[in-house]
Amino acid sequence: MQYNELRKDFLLDRWVVIAKERSRRPTDFAKPKDEAAKNAAVCPLCVGNEGMTPPATMLYLKQENEVAKSQDPPSGERPKNWLVRVIPNLFPAFSPPKQPEDTKQIVENACLWNAIGAHEVIVESPNHDDQPSDADLPQLQLLMKAYVERFKVLGDKSYVKYVSIFRNHGLEAGASLTHAHSQVIATPMVPTLPQDEQKAAKTYYLKNEQCVFCNLIEQERQSSRFILENNDFLVFAPYASIFPMEFWIAPKKHASNIHFLTQQETGSLAKILKVSLKALKDVVNDPPYNYGFHLSLDPIDGDSYHWHLEVYPKLSIWAGFEKSTGCYINTITPETAAESLRNAIKP
Amino acid sequence: MQYNELRKDFLLDRWVVIAKERSRRPTDFAKPKDEAAKNAAVCPLCVGNEGMTPPATMLYLKQENEVAKSQDPPSGERPKNWLVRVIPNLFPAFSPPKQPEDTKQIVENACLWNAIGAHEVIVESPNHDDQPSDADLPQLQLLMKAYVERFKVLGDKSYVKYVSIFRNHGLEAGASLTHAHSQVIATPMVPTLPQDEQKAAKTYYLKNEQCVFCNLIEQERQSSRFILENNDFLVFAPYASIFPMEFWIAPKKHASNIHFLTQQETGSLAKILKVSLKALKDVVNDPPYNYGFHLSLDPIDGDSYHWHLEVYPKLSIWAGFEKSTGCYINTITPETAAESLRNAIKP
Repeated sequence: MQYNELRKDFLLDRWVVIAKERSRRPTDFAKPKDEAAKNAAVCPLCVGNEGMTPPATMLYLKQENEVAKSQDPPSGERPKNWLVRVIPNLFPAFSPPKQPEDTKQIVENACLWNAIGAHEVIVESPNHDDQPSDADLPQLQLLMKAYVERFKVLGDKSYVKYVSIFRNHGLEAGASLTHAHSQVIATPMVPTLPQDEQKAAKTYYLKNEQCVFCNLIEQERQSSRFILENNDFLVFAPYASIFPMEFWIAPKKHASNIHFLTQQETGSLAKILKVSLKALKDVVNDPPYNYGFHLSLDPIDGDSYHWHLEVYPKLSIWAGFEKSTGCYINTITPETAAESLRNAIKP
Repeated sequence: MQYNELRKDFLLDRWVVIAKERSRRPTDFAKPKDEAAKNAAVCPLCVGNEGMTPPATMLYLKQENEVAKSQDPPSGERPKNWLVRVIPNLFPAFSPPKQPEDTKQIVENACLWNAIGAHEVIVESPNHDDQPSDADLPQLQLLMKAYVERFKVLGDKSYVKYVSIFRNHGLEAGASLTHAHSQVIATPMVPTLPQDEQKAAKTYYLKNEQCVFCNLIEQERQSSRFILENNDFLVFAPYASIFPMEFWIAPKKHASNIHFLTQQETGSLAKILKVSLKALKDVVNDPPYNYGFHLSLDPIDGDSYHWHLEVYPKLSIWAGFEKSTGCYINTITPETAAESLRNAIKP
């Protein structure tokens, strides 16, 4: 098995994984989609079907009165008393090195790298339909804990430069399985968007001796784009939202990534995430959405970058203009989005 | 009527139009989509329904043995003998200034501008289903001529910094009307993607005293990503294609935009565009797609930037990973894409 190719654009600072492992022939796209049908059959992420997936790299097991961390044994046994289950993606975009030499990338500015890293699926709950908008808080807090755990484990590898933790909800948002799940992708380079954000935040910091997000959070708390807050987090619709109903969840305490989140904070994050997603579900009839963490692994960004979670409802289509210019059209003002979500949260 | 707002991201060099004129309420998205039903009713772009649209800003009229350029008279009369019809978009993202003062943007780095510019629909043919893959060549050449014409007229306005000419094909690619049509959007700033391309091309030019695209075209002609060529144009699948089956059409003659395309060249472009899109249609069963011209209006890019047309088939979904990192996953290698298109073109 070869690695996927990680190709860099000849002009733009932009990368694409040419995914040989899940490679398709052009004619495959001409066939009718039967993914919905497949989903209706047997769910490989449900309890009892653990054998349909690769062995779990991490498990939270229910044991008497506590939750124990474990993993599937190589023997082939598959514990069924799990609460959260982390498995390698069957068709990974990025995969771990088979041997140490493979991690050596050709040169910094080369246009072809091995797509080395990791691609995992986090099964969020034994219950198929346990979406974050409706899951119990202890279960959702376990998921936040799993995010932190996988971030630490993967971010610690010498060949990993970025860890993307994200969630796809609904077929139109790219979720090919309906069982509640998130994904983690670890990459050997910092991708375009976080790189641009990190650079801009660094420039701001050097000029103003302040974190741009810390300022922004203080400002948005008092704006018409404010949605919700608790002791640890703020939810707001960003000023230049590119998606209708987009919102961000940002920690009030400055940190460039989620490494040092406390138990109090994962609980607090679980709670505010649930309430926000429930409001979105209620206002727009359970729309498809994606969310993703934005963070930095590099200690150099420690003071200047501020991690946060961005939620992108899928309510519009990027067409020729958006795709060929990178300029977006949003038909709901962030102020209207925030107002409707605020109203949905009120008892 | 106010202008739409053009908001700049607080960190990224990225713009979004907050489209008040086509503003929607959050609950609008909760209703079932009836656009397909609407389309089935009366097509506002078909011959005979000219009164359903604003007056045409440009017409190509069929007159005896020649094609005459014209426009709808303010009187309300609507010629029906048109071949190509250019009309203002009913819900424009960008709109012309109502008075000269409105064109003054606040300051260069401000985060809020008026969304001044233009947004036009080019009705490509009197025949509803005259898609470029199947249209007659003379009709398609007229469309190319209309592209050049609108580029010149709009690009000449003092308040316009970029002209995006694009096409959406199929509902999933954002085409809300099925009648064959393209769109033109003129913007008061250079959007992110062309700006990044122009910068990178300039850097390459200053270092190598050559146009990066001129080099690329020579290189791709001899690569496994070659698809098709004629005297004036080359079609190839770019090395770091971010879309499955993506291909580009690039002129062999260096030029930073389409201003000086000759009649010979518009004919040549029409022909190679038709053959390429027909191949795509045959290989993947008429998939949705977008295409967009990439160009520069600024004379400073005259030697370094090279206009071209990028075609993006819509065969996959950008999900949480793509949207939150700007890194893409492509499940068809550009080499496979090129091979299948080459084979579909062979008689």
